[in-house]
Amino acid sequence: MSFQCPKGTRDFYPPDMYVRNWIADRWRSISHRNGFEEYDGPIFEYLDVFRIKSGDAIVGELFHFQDRGGREFAIRPEMTPTLARMVAARANALSKPIKWFSMPRLCRAERPQRGRLREFFQWNIDILGEESALADAECIFVLADFLRDVGLSPEHFEIRINSRELVANILENAGIAPDRFDAIYAVLDKRDKVDEQHFEKMVGELHLTQNQQSALLQLGEAKGAEGLARVEKLVLGHPAGEESLTQLRELFHLLDRMGIGECCRFDMGVVRGLAYYTGVVIEAFGKGGLQRAIAGGGRYGRLVKLMGGPDMSGIGFATSDVVIQDLLTEFNLLPEPETAADLFIIDDASDPACFDTVLEITTSLRQQNHSAIFSYKRQNIGKQFKQASARGVRRVVIVDDKTTQARTVSVKDMASGKQIDLPIDAFLDDPLRPIEEF
Amino acid sequence: MSFQCPKGTRDFYPPDMYVRNWIADRWRSISHRNGFEEYDGPIFEYLDVFRIKSGDAIVGELFHFQDRGGREFAIRPEMTPTLARMVAARANALSKPIKWFSMPRLCRAERPQRGRLREFFQWNIDILGEESALADAECIFVLADFLRDVGLSPEHFEIRINSRELVANILENAGIAPDRFDAIYAVLDKRDKVDEQHFEKMVGELHLTQNQQSALLQLGEAKGAEGLARVEKLVLGHPAGEESLTQLRELFHLLDRMGIGECCRFDMGVVRGLAYYTGVVIEAFGKGGLQRAIAGGGRYGRLVKLMGGPDMSGIGFATSDVVIQDLLTEFNLLPEPETAADLFIIDDASDPACFDTVLEITTSLRQQNHSAIFSYKRQNIGKQFKQASARGVRRVVIVDDKTTQARTVSVKDMASGKQIDLPIDAFLDDPLRPIEEF
Repeated sequence: MSFQCPKGTRDFYPPDMYVRNWIADRWRSISHRNGFEEYDGPIFEYLDVFRIKSGDAIVGELFHFQDRGGREFAIRPEMTPTLARMVAARANALSKPIKWFSMPRLCRAERPQRGRLREFFQWNIDILGEESALADAECIFVLADFLRDVGLSPEHFEIRINSRELVANILENAGIAPDRFDAIYAVLDKRDKVDEQHFEKMVGELHLTQNQQSALLQLGEAKGAEGLARVEKLVLGHPAGEESLTQLRELFHLLDRMGIGECCRFDMGVVRGLAYYTGVVIEAFGKGGLQRAIAGGGRYGRLVKLMGGPDMSGIGFATSDVVIQDLLTEFNLLPEPETAADLFIIDDASDPACFDTVLEITTSLRQQNHSAIFSYKRQNIGKQFKQASARGVRRVVIVDDKTTQARTVSVKDMASGKQIDLPIDAFLDDPLRPIEEF
Repeated sequence: MSFQCPKGTRDFYPPDMYVRNWIADRWRSISHRNGFEEYDGPIFEYLDVFRIKSGDAIVGELFHFQDRGGREFAIRPEMTPTLARMVAARANALSKPIKWFSMPRLCRAERPQRGRLREFFQWNIDILGEESALADAECIFVLADFLRDVGLSPEHFEIRINSRELVANILENAGIAPDRFDAIYAVLDKRDKVDEQHFEKMVGELHLTQNQQSALLQLGEAKGAEGLARVEKLVLGHPAGEESLTQLRELFHLLDRMGIGECCRFDMGVVRGLAYYTGVVIEAFGKGGLQRAIAGGGRYGRLVKLMGGPDMSGIGFATSDVVIQDLLTEFNLLPEPETAADLFIIDDASDPACFDTVLEITTSLRQQNHSAIFSYKRQNIGKQFKQASARGVRRVVIVDDKTTQARTVSVKDMASGKQIDLPIDAFLDDPLRPIEEF
C-alpha cells in the first residue's frame, strides 16, 4: 500500500521547505520593519463565523466537519473572519491603529488549478481603527516594500488602485440602483478572468439599459493619469464623486511621497469581487508570463461589527505563497536551498580516542550555534569525507593522531580547497573564519 | 452576535504570538545546529493514512471530513504518519541518515485538559536509516540541547530512558507470550498517569499469574545505576537480554561523552504506550509543579514499510508548545514580548513640509530593516510623543523647523531619556547607535 498527499496539497521536502520558509521570513521581516505585529487564530473556526460573513453559499467551498457534540466547524479558507472576530472581542483594549499581520495556512475545497491549491499559505496585512488615506497608503507601501525586497521591480509587477466609492458614484450617475452594485462588482471583477464573449454575456445578464451597459464596459478602460482625467469629467458637478476623486488623488500623492509612485497605477477596472469593500481597492498584478493578480485587498467597513464588535473600518491585503513562488520562479529570483550543516567533523576511526574528540568539538560548535554534524559510522577518513561532501558542508574538520598528541585539528574549506592545521582552541574561537585569517 | 475560538483552541494575540514564535524559533535553531533539515506536509491527510497506522479506533479521535468526491480526509493528529509516507515515497533518493525535523500544527478531537488542547504545535525530531546507538544518543542529545538552551537544568527536567527489547526479554523470561506485550506496555505506560488502585485494577485485567503480576509491578521500580545493576541480574544467562542491556549501557556511555549524562536516567518504568516502538524509548519528565511527561519518543521499526516504503527503522521524539510553555512559565523562563517597533518618527504638524521628511526618514529606516512607524494623525508633538511611548518604541525622532532649515533631527532614547540633535545623514548612518557615541 502506498499513499500520496491529498490532491491540491503539497509535501514540503527540505528543499521545498527552504523556499517556503524563505518567503515566510521575508513576509515577517517586511511586516516587522513596517511596524506590524503578528497574530494567529486556530486552523478551524465555528462554521457560523464563515457563514455570517459570506452567506450559506460559502459552505460548499469549505472543508467542514462536526465534533462529537455535533458542533459544526470548518478549516479556515481565509483569515479575515478570524481577524474580525479577534479584534471584535478586544476592540476596546487594543490601542489604535491596530497594525497586524498573519501568515495563515488556509484550505479551500475547490478544484486545484494553476496558482490555486486546496492548501496554501497567505500573508495578511491589516490596519484597523484608522480611516485616513495615510493608512491606505501605508498598507499599499507594505505590499510594494515586499515585492521590491524580493527583487521585483515595476517591470515585473504593478499595483492597480481604484476606489469603490468612485465606482459607486459613477454607477449611481448612470441611474443604477445601489442594491445592484454588489452584483455588478462581481461581474466587473471577472473582466480579466474570462474571455470577452463570456464577459459580455455576464454583463447582459445584469439586465441594464443599453446606456448603463456601455457605461459599464467603458469603466474598465480608465487607467493611469489619463484615466483619472477622464473620470474627473464624469464626476464633475457630483459632490460625492468629486470628494471620492479628491481622496484618491490624495492617496496617489502620498504614494509618490513614499517613493512607490512608479509601482502604482489608477485602474478603474479593478473592483475586487468581495461585497464588503467600501473604499480603496487594490490589486497587484504580475507581469511576464503570469499575467494574473498576485495580491488583492481594500478598505472594508462592516466586518468587525458583523463579529459583534464596534463599527470599525480597516484596510488590508493578502497574497499567497503559491503565486509569489510562481512569479519569483519565472524571474529566477528564488534562492538556492542552503546546505544542511556548516561543519562536518571527521575522525580517524582506527583510534577510538579520536571519536571522543569529535563529540567534544561537535558539542562546542553547537553551543556556539554553529550547525555541526559527524558520521554515525566509524569508517575510514575517505568515506567520511565523501559523506561530508554529499551533505554540502562548508568546512571539514579532521581529528586524527595529531589531535590526540598535540590537540591540533586539520580544517579544510570545501569551496576553496584550502586546508590548515590549528590548535583546537584557536579553531573553536571562530570556526568559520576565512582559512587565511587563522 | 459574538464568537469565540472553538473550545480547546487558542487565539494568538500579538503577545501570545510572540511567545509561540519564541519557542518555535528555538526549536528551529536547535534543529539546525544539530544538522536537521525541516520538512512539512499538508494539514490534512487521507483518513486511511491514520487508519493504517493506528487502526479504526483512531477515527473517533480525529477531525475528519469528506470532499465533494466522497474522499475521506482527517486533520493530522500527529506527524509520524506523514513523515513515514514522505520518506517511503522517496526512500531511495534520500541520502542516509535522514535527519529531519518539523513543527506541525496538529488537531485532536479529544476533551481539552491541562497540557492537552484540541489544537497545538509539536516539535518532531527524527533520524531514519541508521540503527546505531549513536543515532539514539544524538536524538536524545537534541532534546537535552533544547531544554538546556531555554534555561532548564537537571533540577527542572530529567530524560528517562529504557529499552523495549530489554523489557520484552524480562517479560519473556517471566513466561509471558510476546503477543501480550503491546497490551502490557499500554498498561505500564499508565502507571504514573492513574492512581495506584486504578493501576492495580488494570494489571489485574491482564489475567497474568501471581508471579507475572508481581514481576510487572516490580519492573517499574528499577531506576538509575542501581536499577541497571538489578536488571543485570534478571537477564543473566539470557543472551538476548544481555545483548539488550549491553546496547543500553553503550547508549548511556555515549550520552556521558556528549556531556548530557546528568540529564539522563535509566527508568524501567518508561515504556511509552505506542505499539510501534521496538528499541530505545525515551520520555522527558518535567519536575516542579508540572510532574508530567514533556516529551516522548523512541525507536520504531515498521512505520516506513507500512506506508509502502522499505524496511527502515528510525528514532525520534516529539514535544508540544503547550507543555513547554507550561514548564517555562512555572520556572519564569519565558521572555517578555518585545515592542512593535524600534523607532517612532514625529513631525511638527503645523508645518506640512515636516511630514514629507517623516516619510523620507521612515522609508530609509525600513530599507535598512529597522522597524519604524509614525502617527497617522497630524497632531501636536506632545500627543505624538504619547503615542510613541504607548507603543514602547526604543527611540523617538523629531522632525521640526530645525529639520527644514538645517536638515537636523532630534533623537531621543526612551530608556535613558538622553536626547541629541543630529544631521539626518549622521543619524541614518547607524540609527540605533548609543546616543553618547554619535
